[in-house]
Amino acid sequence: MADLNKFFETVDSLKPEFIQRLSDAVAIPSVSADAEHRPEVVKMAHWTVDQLKALGAHDIELRELGVQEGTEDLQLPPVVLAKYGNDANKKNILIYGHLDVQPALKEDGWNTDPFVLTVDEEKDVMYGRGSTDDKGPVIGWLNAIEAYKKAGIDFPVNLVMCFEGMEESGSLGLEQLVFAEGDKYFKGVDAVCISDNYWLGTTHPVLTYGLRGCNYYSITITGPGADLHSGVFGGIVNEPMIDLSKVLATLVDGKGKIQIEGVDKMVAPVTEEERSRYDDIHYDIKELTEATGGNDINMHSTKEDTLMARWRYPSLSIHGIEGAFSGAGAKTVIPAKVSGKFSIRTVPNINSKMLDELVFAHVEKEFAKLGSKCKLNVELVHDGDYWVSDPNNWNFTAAKKATKAVWGVEPDLTREGGSIPITLIFEQATKSDVLLLPMGRGDDGAHSINEKLNISNYIGGVKTLGAYLHYIAEEKKE
Amino acid sequence: MADLNKFFETVDSLKPEFIQRLSDAVAIPSVSADAEHRPEVVKMAHWTVDQLKALGAHDIELRELGVQEGTEDLQLPPVVLAKYGNDANKKNILIYGHLDVQPALKEDGWNTDPFVLTVDEEKDVMYGRGSTDDKGPVIGWLNAIEAYKKAGIDFPVNLVMCFEGMEESGSLGLEQLVFAEGDKYFKGVDAVCISDNYWLGTTHPVLTYGLRGCNYYSITITGPGADLHSGVFGGIVNEPMIDLSKVLATLVDGKGKIQIEGVDKMVAPVTEEERSRYDDIHYDIKELTEATGGNDINMHSTKEDTLMARWRYPSLSIHGIEGAFSGAGAKTVIPAKVSGKFSIRTVPNINSKMLDELVFAHVEKEFAKLGSKCKLNVELVHDGDYWVSDPNNWNFTAAKKATKAVWGVEPDLTREGGSIPITLIFEQATKSDVLLLPMGRGDDGAHSINEKLNISNYIGGVKTLGAYLHYIAEEKKE
Ligand SMILES: [Zn+2]
Ligand SMILES: [Zn+2]
Ligand SMILES: [Zn+2]
Ligand SMILES: [Zn+2]
Repeated sequence: MADLNKFFETVDSLKPEFIQRLSDAVAIPSVSADAEHRPEVVKMAHWTVDQLKALGAHDIELRELGVQEGTEDLQLPPVVLAKYGNDANKKNILIYGHLDVQPALKEDGWNTDPFVLTVDEEKDVMYGRGSTDDKGPVIGWLNAIEAYKKAGIDFPVNLVMCFEGMEESGSLGLEQLVFAEGDKYFKGVDAVCISDNYWLGTTHPVLTYGLRGCNYYSITITGPGADLHSGVFGGIVNEPMIDLSKVLATLVDGKGKIQIEGVDKMVAPVTEEERSRYDDIHYDIKELTEATGGNDINMHSTKEDTLMARWRYPSLSIHGIEGAFSGAGAKTVIPAKVSGKFSIRTVPNINSKMLDELVFAHVEKEFAKLGSKCKLNVELVHDGDYWVSDPNNWNFTAAKKATKAVWGVEPDLTREGGSIPITLIFEQATKSDVLLLPMGRGDDGAHSINEKLNISNYIGGVKTLGAYLHYIAEEKKE
Repeated sequence: MADLNKFFETVDSLKPEFIQRLSDAVAIPSVSADAEHRPEVVKMAHWTVDQLKALGAHDIELRELGVQEGTEDLQLPPVVLAKYGNDANKKNILIYGHLDVQPALKEDGWNTDPFVLTVDEEKDVMYGRGSTDDKGPVIGWLNAIEAYKKAGIDFPVNLVMCFEGMEESGSLGLEQLVFAEGDKYFKGVDAVCISDNYWLGTTHPVLTYGLRGCNYYSITITGPGADLHSGVFGGIVNEPMIDLSKVLATLVDGKGKIQIEGVDKMVAPVTEEERSRYDDIHYDIKELTEATGGNDINMHSTKEDTLMARWRYPSLSIHGIEGAFSGAGAKTVIPAKVSGKFSIRTVPNINSKMLDELVFAHVEKEFAKLGSKCKLNVELVHDGDYWVSDPNNWNFTAAKKATKAVWGVEPDLTREGGSIPITLIFEQATKSDVLLLPMGRGDDGAHSINEKLNISNYIGGVKTLGAYLHYIAEEKKE
């Protein structure tokens, strides 16, 4: 504990340097979505390598991933691999983060230049694209190394680092690399820690132990060979848009309950232990109304129901229709072929393949009921499994101790409704426990205008990451 | 009858000149939809004026309609007004047609240059944009004047001509002009004849006595203030797209029957006389399968049911959704605000305003059933009344005689499922009977690639228009 206090003091004393380091990183507009910005993503990788070298990391590699699929010769940005420490008596902890950011333009409505870290000490806030997603956390790890060094404390673990540059664009190429390096570069990894999500609210630190999966489906209904005029053909032909509306309407009820037979039965029942976790969570459902733009459209009336619906129950959303009239104004077309897109967020113990079968059977049955002469095709567009860990395992125990040491409170144990596919990939490739340890707050606006990271979260985050390494070193591996 | 035979012979002898005249007109790409082509529409009006002058028309005017709404300074093309004959003892017949055409590009899949009339005598076909819609019929009237002149026969009526240049783009500006001129330029009109539609099939001439109206509606459902991520919010908020699918699904059943209470009751019952008209109509429902691209999606099994569904029963089509994800691929968005567009084709005796009330009440009722916290707005986007005439009135009687004289058969009496709003406007503005007397065939492909007009329809059409004027002159006005 003496060591840790020294570490914390050193972090506090390095605050100006840490803010400068984040500022340098935010100044590189490493937007992965645009080919034009690709050199900036590469520059960000090189910048990171320079930082790692200066800190004394070794086995540093810029791993090339080849040409981006669907492009002629656009190179994917390299993945930064690095190690820090090589002591056979220490645990090997793999950390992951991403160096790329979402697009951002001042004109989108930013109050400040998105690629200039704007620090407001009084408000405890730093604005800038990537501040919270995910440059703050990635640099948090670098800061932790520096603070340990400057404090003169032996680094508690061996770090294995993996920082990619395409996370905001589907992590192209990363899955293959991670699986290929499972028993090579990542050999001997004892646990994985990812800092790339957020506190649930704005005041209470959290650890995250679950993510929903996502199966995305498309229902295509085909009628005539080409679009028809509704004056000439309205009333005499089966119309794909009418059929599709009727099929889509059967998928879920007005309260969000999925109407596809058999889905409910696959959902794991709530245990008493699990239910009790929800009572303690710091969350006010009024925050939801704010998050949805001031309109109260919450289908649930309690905190517990709301969070369970987001985290541990499946949901079905209808995203839109391809092929129908989608412009402004009034067009009297009968669209010839329309595809309805919807997805189901999956949770334990939904079997993804079985879910596909249930969805196909339901859609085919409902379409058959219409007696339409149109043709139906329903297919899975993509899928990704849910991830759930045991929030009481040694990895989480270490993180709980770290949180307590830094923030003085027990962390809330949260799940997330969305997916971070790389989580499951690291778990499978390294066959070890993964922990999601967020730095920023729920209102940071990761993909929005005026993205921010609170200074207290940044400094507290560096302390938490460092303390986590301290405690995981002490923990007995399960 | 001697006069008429002389007229027919003269038409036959002038065939090369008539084809040349149509060829000259098709060579002017008078596309009204593009601002770039606007000068060509104007050129087409001037060309028509020159033709009319050469034929001896008088009171010729190029009536300017001002700047096109929604544009800075794009002038609408002028309407050509002209008279031919000024004999107080003759009837005054108003004829209408349009000089503009649909867009056409060789690259769209045309076998020939769309703006070069390509004549295939062997196949009895002339290909070219505007050949059948509507340059063939408009020039048919000019040809009829020329044939009467060259045959040395006194022209049977006074013609009042109105040729516009914006029909394919909503007839902008025309309604005001027609109503304004009802008792001025169009004063004393006894009957109106419009040649701008088609035979039902490919072999039997028709006269058209009815058109459906169209009320176009938009249902807007609003949820969150901005689009949401379905991972984070799926399962906890009411989703506009889910609500909209459910409301759209209640509008019409799988067999085309409108489910909005009260609509059925407004539809005029079928009389015995009306039903009997359908028995004789020359139509093979197999043609419908061809018209829908080879896919049989006809909801009806008999000719009579099919035609009644198209002509004399209302129909409801869902055109699409604005605001939802409409692209290719997979996007996991929860759209914040979606507008479903649908329209109802109206028939006697549907009261347009009452229909609006029924639609609004139905949509509001179905939305209320969902118990959703989203907000609903349903509105009428535009409407246009149906038109039905008495196919036994003097105007039709004259046209029946003309058809018999030229084609040797009784015309089929048809209606159309679509709207030609100008029909009702001329009826109201001139307070006289309107007749739709088509020249081309049902497979002419008016708005498609490879638009064509059969040579026999062109020449037979000129004869029919001329014979119609002959017989309407003899007919006792009702
Ligand atoms: Zn991220
Ligand atoms: Zn992100
Ligand atoms: Zn037309
Ligand atoms: Zn047209």
